[in-house]
Amino acid sequence: MARVSSLLSFSLTLLIFFDGYAAQQGQEGQQFPNECQLDQLNALEPSHVLKSEAGRIEVWDHHAPQLRCSGVSFARYIIESKGLYLPSFFNTAKLSFVAKGRGLMGKVIPGCAETFQDSSEFQPRFEGQGERQRFRDMHQKVEHIRSGDTIATTPGVAQWFYNDGQQPLVIVSVFDLASHQNQLDRNPRPFYLAGNNPQGQVWLQGREQQPQKNIFNGFGPEVIAQALKIDLKTAQQLQNQEDNRGNIVRVEGPFGVIRPPLRGQRPQEEEKEEGRHGRHGNGLEETICSARSTDNLDDPSRADVYKPQLGYISTLNSYDLPILRFIRLSALRGSIRQNAMVLPQWNANANAILYVTDGEAQIQIVNDNGNRVFDGQVTQGQLIAIPQGFSVVKRATSNRFQWVEFKTNANAQINTLAGRTSVLRGLPLEVITNGFQISPKEARRVKFNTLETTLTHSSGPASYERPRVAEA
Amino acid sequence: MARVSSLLSFSLTLLIFFDGYAAQQGQEGQQFPNECQLDQLNALEPSHVLKSEAGRIEVWDHHAPQLRCSGVSFARYIIESKGLYLPSFFNTAKLSFVAKGRGLMGKVIPGCAETFQDSSEFQPRFEGQGERQRFRDMHQKVEHIRSGDTIATTPGVAQWFYNDGQQPLVIVSVFDLASHQNQLDRNPRPFYLAGNNPQGQVWLQGREQQPQKNIFNGFGPEVIAQALKIDLKTAQQLQNQEDNRGNIVRVEGPFGVIRPPLRGQRPQEEEKEEGRHGRHGNGLEETICSARSTDNLDDPSRADVYKPQLGYISTLNSYDLPILRFIRLSALRGSIRQNAMVLPQWNANANAILYVTDGEAQIQIVNDNGNRVFDGQVTQGQLIAIPQGFSVVKRATSNRFQWVEFKTNANAQINTLAGRTSVLRGLPLEVITNGFQISPKEARRVKFNTLETTLTHSSGPASYERPRVAEA
Amino acid sequence: MARVSSLLSFSLTLLIFFDGYAAQQGQEGQQFPNECQLDQLNALEPSHVLKSEAGRIEVWDHHAPQLRCSGVSFARYIIESKGLYLPSFFNTAKLSFVAKGRGLMGKVIPGCAETFQDSSEFQPRFEGQGERQRFRDMHQKVEHIRSGDTIATTPGVAQWFYNDGQQPLVIVSVFDLASHQNQLDRNPRPFYLAGNNPQGQVWLQGREQQPQKNIFNGFGPEVIAQALKIDLKTAQQLQNQEDNRGNIVRVEGPFGVIRPPLRGQRPQEEEKEEGRHGRHGNGLEETICSARSTDNLDDPSRADVYKPQLGYISTLNSYDLPILRFIRLSALRGSIRQNAMVLPQWNANANAILYVTDGEAQIQIVNDNGNRVFDGQVTQGQLIAIPQGFSVVKRATSNRFQWVEFKTNANAQINTLAGRTSVLRGLPLEVITNGFQISPKEARRVKFNTLETTLTHSSGPASYERPRVAEA
Repeated sequence: MARVSSLLSFSLTLLIFFDGYAAQQGQEGQQFPNECQLDQLNALEPSHVLKSEAGRIEVWDHHAPQLRCSGVSFARYIIESKGLYLPSFFNTAKLSFVAKGRGLMGKVIPGCAETFQDSSEFQPRFEGQGERQRFRDMHQKVEHIRSGDTIATTPGVAQWFYNDGQQPLVIVSVFDLASHQNQLDRNPRPFYLAGNNPQGQVWLQGREQQPQKNIFNGFGPEVIAQALKIDLKTAQQLQNQEDNRGNIVRVEGPFGVIRPPLRGQRPQEEEKEEGRHGRHGNGLEETICSARSTDNLDDPSRADVYKPQLGYISTLNSYDLPILRFIRLSALRGSIRQNAMVLPQWNANANAILYVTDGEAQIQIVNDNGNRVFDGQVTQGQLIAIPQGFSVVKRATSNRFQWVEFKTNANAQINTLAGRTSVLRGLPLEVITNGFQISPKEARRVKFNTLETTLTHSSGPASYERPRVAEA
Repeated sequence: MARVSSLLSFSLTLLIFFDGYAAQQGQEGQQFPNECQLDQLNALEPSHVLKSEAGRIEVWDHHAPQLRCSGVSFARYIIESKGLYLPSFFNTAKLSFVAKGRGLMGKVIPGCAETFQDSSEFQPRFEGQGERQRFRDMHQKVEHIRSGDTIATTPGVAQWFYNDGQQPLVIVSVFDLASHQNQLDRNPRPFYLAGNNPQGQVWLQGREQQPQKNIFNGFGPEVIAQALKIDLKTAQQLQNQEDNRGNIVRVEGPFGVIRPPLRGQRPQEEEKEEGRHGRHGNGLEETICSARSTDNLDDPSRADVYKPQLGYISTLNSYDLPILRFIRLSALRGSIRQNAMVLPQWNANANAILYVTDGEAQIQIVNDNGNRVFDGQVTQGQLIAIPQGFSVVKRATSNRFQWVEFKTNANAQINTLAGRTSVLRGLPLEVITNGFQISPKEARRVKFNTLETTLTHSSGPASYERPRVAEA
Repeated sequence: MARVSSLLSFSLTLLIFFDGYAAQQGQEGQQFPNECQLDQLNALEPSHVLKSEAGRIEVWDHHAPQLRCSGVSFARYIIESKGLYLPSFFNTAKLSFVAKGRGLMGKVIPGCAETFQDSSEFQPRFEGQGERQRFRDMHQKVEHIRSGDTIATTPGVAQWFYNDGQQPLVIVSVFDLASHQNQLDRNPRPFYLAGNNPQGQVWLQGREQQPQKNIFNGFGPEVIAQALKIDLKTAQQLQNQEDNRGNIVRVEGPFGVIRPPLRGQRPQEEEKEEGRHGRHGNGLEETICSARSTDNLDDPSRADVYKPQLGYISTLNSYDLPILRFIRLSALRGSIRQNAMVLPQWNANANAILYVTDGEAQIQIVNDNGNRVFDGQVTQGQLIAIPQGFSVVKRATSNRFQWVEFKTNANAQINTLAGRTSVLRGLPLEVITNGFQISPKEARRVKFNTLETTLTHSSGPASYERPRVAEA
């Protein structure tokens, strides 16, 4: 009888387990999707690290509720000095931000010309082994990148990075899984042209993990040999089957790619030239080849909001960088000093992914239920999502707090809760007095006391009676 | 042994339960989503009522199959005389229709100027308590609204309403959950700037229901005090924690907002002025601030179809109101007399949500299988969805039947089954004779007898031999 | 005790079964959708055949993993000589390709005029039975179609086909379920104006299969009689309830629709005339009525790539046919000779659905993991999906291999792995030497040996040392 009882309890357990599963389904958005029912947010750190010979790729778990709700995934690339991130492409649009260091970057856009040539008398033929030294290279555009650069990449476009500095080159990227630019499911999928990933796509579920190989590896070597008109041995080398260096490899010796002079002076003429060479006959607009896809957000002289004592904020949207219209993403760069506060605000038409590049801040986030779903410190290297409509306030708690926000709209709009352009300013006094049951006198303070638009001191006196003169 | 048997039956029950669950999953669109496999539609009434001090909000269950298929949610706002619907915003685009009454409406659009000032010498500073009477207010645009007004609202934009009439002000709103304007999940989420919802978001699933508070409530009071430069006590008052009035509150005394003169004469000059003040530096186009977002559909002189004996139909699409292109919604207003019929038609590229504002009608709806999935009466206050491709015919059964249809496309196209611009008219006679196995003579009647385009009498003689002269 | 043990084992089975179900859910994309985790592709054949009096409709199972991932469904229409595919419309945008034969096609676009009239003195009234012979027809545009024609159809627009040739007319169509043009769920749903489908919508799940009837069948006959102003008997005939001919019926005698002269000379004047008659007052742009929606991809003189010894490739995107921008689809037609190879490539921003119209080819497809997920023969009548980012190489293995690819982007971009405009050409030599651990000499061969852009011989010598002169 004891056994029967235990069986009974076993079956009951089963029932409970099943019930639990069904309940979880409801919560997890199976019955009716509700992945944005977020009662708690967390500062997120990477969940997977892919190690390579000369760096590592750190991947955030895009199944984390706040990232699922936001429809994005996120990764950080740490490329050591002399490290080369080998060309790969994604099924999604991508927006990247150079958090540290400097380097070179190249993208290969289908059908565009090799506009970088190291000699005007370039002849792409060999005339025997003895004359090999006369050979010159030609390839598509190579750009210098440096801290603050924000780089838009369309799906299916191969991109590589090289760290030609002394410090690690750190790049963070957001991948828009929810946009129709991604025509696969809601998973980020890198496709490797070279290199590999011995650990496999650990961020995917339901696939038995195998090492991830490059594309050539999947074709028969004789196909590669025929397609590239090379011998079978070289074709097999392209498959890199014995290679375990990962996707960031160390370059020995000089990295002799053709590159423009360092910035300060944009090479305008070369860009124009590209335009003329553009179209190669596969349905691309001429302008794609010369479209600018990079801008720097770290130049305070171009800031949208700048207050010497408090900090600055710069935004990059599709008015600045038209390709963003196409990839449906935009970015904001912020840098504030100790005790500066970014006035409370919400994103009207976008989700935001905030990544801390330096320092730390105290952040509060409020959801649709009026609950504080985050109240804590975020520090360098952490990420937090701020879903559409959720209000957020940021106060620097270190000497300098610097961050980048990626937004899932080419023209993300914010609404502020306080300040000269805030929602309270736009409301009639009567709405405020009746809504909050306060006197007209109090309502006037609520509405007019703060004259700044975006940044203010957070350590001021706790009580104000009069409006102050606007600072910015 | 009896126990063992009962255990067996229990386990079998469990298995059946589990099987039933799996089967339901199939039906409910879990395995492969098929939420539009609709074999029966129903005239829907609100499932939740949120009571407030001066009115109530009635919410339809957006999980009802026909609303899930249509990708929208729906609510009705009943605001009593002197009632103020406090400012709130949504994660979705919204299209509203004023079904009854009149009032005032304000929206606060991020970054736009306070163009309503009650004196040209406005000085936003106080010069001591004694001079308070010289103080003037300034705020964003306030509009008169009245029955028939159709109002587009973008996500994240706070909106308020005030009933300055004697009768209840009734507004119905559709929320587009399926558009990419909504970047959260497929649930409508109001965010309250002021006011609250003591009953909680009862339309959400999987969240333990808590009273819904305003946004200020979620921040620490010291954060609010610092952001608004007010004292802590006022900050706490903004959190409204003791307030149980809901989101529609009663205004005691006059509601002295600055407002334009009543319509008849549109205040063109003010609108122009707004345009010039527009941009305030947060990435908005100047035109957003002055973009028209309201139009009235109750003026028969502007009707698209007008027949004195039968009624009229007016549509509002993005050619009339360009902001609709952005929010991907449009509207149709209809008003027909007893026994008038709207000729059978289908929506080519949109789902439609039909809400009855007055009277009643007999409606038949036919799905993709050729089955009649609705055949019944719809009466004032009821709603029915007409999914893309489903054909519908409406016949007034009361003295006057009036309705509004919200469509999930900025330029919804209809195709009629009968009439001068119908699909049958566009088909060659041979297709009709062969398709329906009827004689050329019958085919000609089918094709040419009805000369109206949209509205006809439904009580005419049952047999016609000849085409009649077109009426409209 | 034996029974108790068996019970235990039974319960364990249950647990395993449940576990299996949960695991399958993970795989099938329930927990987190991952329908594009494709480790194996297959050449697909139709899963359902709907037989009609004068032809048949063959439907592919759109739940097949590769089609679910691609977000499309697919069907083949085989219309016998004198067969008429009766007018029906879909909830999705559709792109069709005429694989064999020739015929007539008509679409009825809402609100557009009947621009085809068989006499300029047309009077749409009858003047008594005796004069009926003077009656003329008028209807919307009728077009000749022939092998190679690619036809765009918007949702909700009724379309018919007639085979006026001697051979079967074969049309294949892709339906874009994932685009927002489809506002229902991800199932293709035909709506029949005439005809029927006695077998029911066998491709749908979770609905008890019933014969599918035409739209008129769903309305009450008295409604139809009143709407069309016909007698009840004719109304009942429109419901076709006794009809079992299916949706492709045989036309006895001549099919006397008004049609333009056969092509060679496009009837430019008539098209212009349509433009002027366009708008009929239901919110359509004038241009919709005269918008071209058909182009022929079988004319080698208009090919994008043409090599007499190898074959040709033609693309049709929204630059060629602007309506494609609206329906978010494009097409590619290929025709290659024995042993010609289409150089390996991937789709940057689209999924592709490849359908073989003639001959056979050896195809290899490589996924994001670098695995070969397809390596086999595809033959006439088969279909295979090539998801975004997956690389593919095609080699003809019959005298001539001809195919059509439908792509889920109005301007699908490809990237090639080999050839003069390939990604390898765009990469600096240093990236290639470091990425593949090959010598600069080998890297130059890899980069420069193949001078063709798209097509090459696949039977050339296995080893090449020098680049050859470009052929195309």
